[in-house]
Amino acid sequence: MNFPSKVLEKAVEEISGLPGIGKKSALRLALHLLRQPPSQGLALGNAIQKLVTEIKYCKKCHNFSDEDICEICNSPKRNDEILCIVEDVRDVMAIENTSKFNGKYLVLGGKISPMEGIGPHQLNISSIEKKLNEGMVKELIFALSATMEGDTTAYYLYKKFKEFPVTFSSIARGIAVGDELEYADEISLGRSIINRLPYNEKS
Amino acid sequence: MNFPSKVLEKAVEEISGLPGIGKKSALRLALHLLRQPPSQGLALGNAIQKLVTEIKYCKKCHNFSDEDICEICNSPKRNDEILCIVEDVRDVMAIENTSKFNGKYLVLGGKISPMEGIGPHQLNISSIEKKLNEGMVKELIFALSATMEGDTTAYYLYKKFKEFPVTFSSIARGIAVGDELEYADEISLGRSIINRLPYNEKS
Repeated sequence: MNFPSKVLEKAVEEISGLPGIGKKSALRLALHLLRQPPSQGLALGNAIQKLVTEIKYCKKCHNFSDEDICEICNSPKRNDEILCIVEDVRDVMAIENTSKFNGKYLVLGGKISPMEGIGPHQLNISSIEKKLNEGMVKELIFALSATMEGDTTAYYLYKKFKEFPVTFSSIARGIAVGDELEYADEISLGRSIINRLPYNEKS
Repeated sequence: MNFPSKVLEKAVEEISGLPGIGKKSALRLALHLLRQPPSQGLALGNAIQKLVTEIKYCKKCHNFSDEDICEICNSPKRNDEILCIVEDVRDVMAIENTSKFNGKYLVLGGKISPMEGIGPHQLNISSIEKKLNEGMVKELIFALSATMEGDTTAYYLYKKFKEFPVTFSSIARGIAVGDELEYADEISLGRSIINRLPYNEKS
């Protein structure tokens, strides 16, 4: 591509470094920004620079945070007795959006995956140990991916921490709300039969 | 969406202001930037800010430029006798990428479109007049969209400038290279028959 301007070329090059955005899309976005008031591009550039320089990770749960300790860890309204183990900060956001969980989180930062060369020592497992040593936690929920790696990670954590006086649980797997049995995959359907629940009117 | 950090929320908000990028994609991009070294986000933010503050428009042809007069207008190697009228800077880039044109350009900045409230006075038509008054131009090429608005714009410009001693031409419309007749739309096919060309071995 021939660019009429070095400034435009540089912007297109940087924008196309983002995942899923090619040169043509990057050019389209750059031209869009040029059609808007400069304040929009300045605000966007500033927000991105602030994002990568100012964001912190909560020292307790490894979630993103603006302070050293995040809002959830700091909140007196959250239940300290339930600790939900998730792989990623996106999972915290997803669970928070359900408004069904009032405990605290711990972000592992990934899952054990020999294929990708990720072992237990690269995950925030020592923070779980620290939490358990504090003695507040009574239940550990594994909210991990329903994949081989997720299951391996849950099993590893269970083996490591089973001596602690806590109960272990895992988020339910089964048929998603709105799904028809006919189209469900057999593994999910099989698990949902094995892990069947007592019927009650509200379920 | 609940964000664990204001900085993240602001970045997602700004990124999702770009066309075709929703909140979920914006979050994905923001999290991607956080997984990279901060230098990448800083460079991206800087390139965007430079783009919207430093880019100039060529005073002669209205193409993007880093200087007051763009490289094409300044080049002694380009033919001053042929002026190619295009709607947009992207069209200049598209034609430059073909390497088949050695004249100069004039970017209209749009096309006459009563539907979108764009009239001749919003386009860079006075710059064409200035060019024609200088007396160098011998041919005016309309390289406009093959749409009603493109045709209207070409007709308007022809009517306005037909007294000048220049020839007018329009880029060829017809069957695209690689297309099969069977699947071509009837208007393009019809035009390609009316505007048929003398056959020669090289065509």
